[in-house]
Parts: sequence; structure tokens; C-alpha cells
Amino acid sequence: MTPERFARITSMLNHRQPDLTVFMEQVHMQHNLAAIVRTADAMGINNVHATWDIDSSRISRNVASGSQKWVNVHSHDTVQDAVAALREQGMQIIATNLSATAIDFREVDYTKPTAIMMGQEKFGISDEALALADQDVIIPMVGMCQSLNVSVASAIIMSEAQRQRQIAGMYGQTCRLPEEEQHRILFEGGHP
Amino acid sequence: MTPERFARITSMLNHRQPDLTVFMEQVHMQHNLAAIVRTADAMGINNVHATWDIDSSRISRNVASGSQKWVNVHSHDTVQDAVAALREQGMQIIATNLSATAIDFREVDYTKPTAIMMGQEKFGISDEALALADQDVIIPMVGMCQSLNVSVASAIIMSEAQRQRQIAGMYGQTCRLPEEEQHRILFEGGHP
Ligand SMILES: C[S@@+](CC[C@H](N)C(=O)[O-])C[C@H]1O[C@@H](n2cnc3c(N)ncnc32)[C@H](O)[C@@H]1O
Ligand SMILES: C[S@@+](CC[C@H](N)C(=O)[O-])C[C@H]1O[C@@H](n2cnc3c(N)ncnc32)[C@H](O)[C@@H]1O
Repeated sequence: MTPERFARITSMLNHRQPDLTVFMEQVHMQHNLAAIVRTADAMGINNVHATWDIDSSRISRNVASGSQKWVNVHSHDTVQDAVAALREQGMQIIATNLSATAIDFREVDYTKPTAIMMGQEKFGISDEALALADQDVIIPMVGMCQSLNVSVASAIIMSEAQRQRQIAGMYGQTCRLPEEEQHRILFEGGHP
Repeated sequence: MTPERFARITSMLNHRQPDLTVFMEQVHMQHNLAAIVRTADAMGINNVHATWDIDSSRISRNVASGSQKWVNVHSHDTVQDAVAALREQGMQIIATNLSATAIDFREVDYTKPTAIMMGQEKFGISDEALALADQDVIIPMVGMCQSLNVSVASAIIMSEAQRQRQIAGMYGQTCRLPEEEQHRILFEGGHP
């Protein structure tokens, strides 16, 4: 590995936010999945979670994991399984939902361990998933369209989380990933 | 027109920001164009500008204009023409550019009349266009990917502009569009 590449990977590792994640409930369009994983990487998010619908599962899984070898895509069979895994990590679960009771997404404290739940392109987040979340949030819209594209909505929220964590000094200090994972990534990144 | 629809359109009109726009230089993927126009509408942007590359012009124009009847898509033959039109409206021109000299996108004052220039998916903004802009900005990235998806990047910047303008009280007071345009939109919106 060249010294430049070593420095690049080390810097990336020092910015990773293991306690911030995105959970995609049955998001299935390839360009949306790819864009979400790409934005996650750029914002320092190294783990994302997903459930898949029956039809799109095979293609989608490949796209999402292939598009970004630097982000782990964790697949779950059910929403319940996914939420249980996130709870085990002490995460608050924030559901993006176009409802009248949702609060403005900027009111959430994203410096806490947080999972941002995104819904399916057509139907949004399921009632089951909503019932398991701690808080519904919405990105205010003042136009005539009913919703934003899912990769756009997730990026706007990830960017707010990044802004808050930047101010809180959570980026670039020391690596917050487990030591084994650091070593694995440095090793794999050096041998592409 | 029902009273509800009249109220909806009137509220939309009162949030429109005629002095904020996006200029897409040869962005050509249909899902990106559609997502950018949709986000613009949601953030109160009623005009976007574009130049097209030779191959994709016909399809792209239709997608962009068809996807959102509430946003005007202005086509220009050259970057020079587009910039001249924006300058005539007194706009500062902010180029999104992955360069070492670009400043953080949050440092810009978006309450001023502003055009946000977005680049082509593969090649980014042309040197010609960069030379015509007032300022380069970048969305900081801390991962391994080289860039964000163009619709994602534009949404993150539009959202910051919306945040600043919201604080400045530029939304929802009175309609800032020319009276003829208000009437046209109310008329057309009532007769779909
Ligand atoms: C196209 S939307 C789904 C629309 C669906 N008809 C609904 O009512 O939920 C896909 C996903 O994008 C996200 N989303 C879109 N617009 C949003 C907004 N304004 N605020 C928060 N999330 C949004 C949500 O995760 C949503 O489930
Ligand atoms: C996929 S990028 C183009 C990448 C191209 N190789 C380059 O170097 O510009 C497409 C467009 O998205 C926008 N973009 C992507 N990532 C960005 C970032 N981090 N900051 C600002 N704009 C970005 C810019 O408008 C860019 O021209």
C-alpha cells in the first residue's frame, strides 16, 4: 500500500460514525440504493441496514453491497429483526414519515446513537415499522409534490446529522471502530 | 376549483422563491433530472435552468418538464446564454465543484439572489462554466467515494438555502411572483 492510500484510509477510519446508521425498509430501485450507500460513505456512516421485498431481493442486495465496498449492508428478514439489532446497539429509531404528527427533522438530536429509517419508494414506511420507531420526522415541503425521492430525503437528513456531529467534535478525532474492524479494512483496502 | 385546492395553490405561491434557482449543466440521467426538479418544487424553487448535451436533449427535456408541471425548466443553448440570463436577474452564481479551492457550501449566503450550478454526472462542471461562476463550493466528504450523486448534492444545498431563508423570514409571507404568473398558475392549477 502506498503511503498516500494508507493516509487516506486512516483518515476515513477516523471519521467513521459507528453509532449512526440508515435502515432502508424495502427500498428497491437500484439507483436509490446506490445513492443512499454512496451518501452514507461520504458522511462517515459505515453500516446500513435493509429489509428487502420478495421480488427485488436478489438484484438489490447485489447492487447495494457492490456499489460501495466501504459500507457494510446488513440484511434482515423482517422489520422486527432489524429493529431488534438496532436496539441492541442502543440506537434511537427515527422514522421518516409524511404524517401530520411528524416533527421537523432538524429538531432531532443526531449526536445520540441513531438509526434513520427510510421507506419504500411507493408505499413509504410500513405501519409495523412506524409502531417500532421512537419518533416520526418530516422534511418540510412547500411545493405541490407529495414527497421527495427517498435517496434525496435520506441525504438531507444524513447531512443534518453530519452538521450536528461536526459541531459536537465527533469527526476525525480518533477511530471509533473496533480494532479488529480497523485492521480488516486497512488490510482489505491495501489489497484491492 | 375546490376551496382546498385553491388554498393549497395559494400557500405554494406564497412560498415560492423567484430569486433562488438551480442551473444543471448537461445533467442527463432521467432519474436525476426528475429528482432535482421534484426537490426544487418542495423547497419553493419555481425556476430551474439547464443546458443539454446533444445526445440526451430530446428525452431529457421531456422528462424534466413533464415530471413537474409546477416548476419552469428553462433551456439554454450554451452556458454563456444561461449565465447571461441569470446575471440579468442579479443572481450570484455558485458552482458545485470538487476542487481544493472550493469553500464549504454552508459558508455561502443563500438569502441573496442565487443560482446553484450542478455538473454533469460523469465530468462535472465544465471549465467554461466554472470560469463564469462567482464561487466554488463543496459538500465535505469523509469517505472513500469521490463524489455524491448529483441529485443528492443539489438537494443538500437546496436544503441549506431553505434553512437560511426560513430563518430570514423569506417563506410564506406574501407571494413574490409577478402578478401575471400568479394568475396563470392559479388558472392552470384549477383546470388540470
Ligand atoms: C417517495 S417516499 C414514499 C411516499 C409514500 N406515498 C408515503 O406516503 O410515505 C419514499 C420515502 O422517502 C422518504 N421521504 C420522502 N419525502 C420525505 C419528507 N418530506 N420527509 C421525510 N421523509 C421523506 C421517506 O422515507 C419515504 O418513506
Ligand atoms: C458525480 S458528480 C461529477 C464528478 C466529476 N468526476 C467531477 O469531478 O466533478 C456530479 C455533480 O454532482 C455535484 N456534486 C457531487 N458531489 C459533490 C460534492 N461533494 N460537493 C459539491 N457538489 C457535488 C456537482 O455538481 C458535480 O458536478
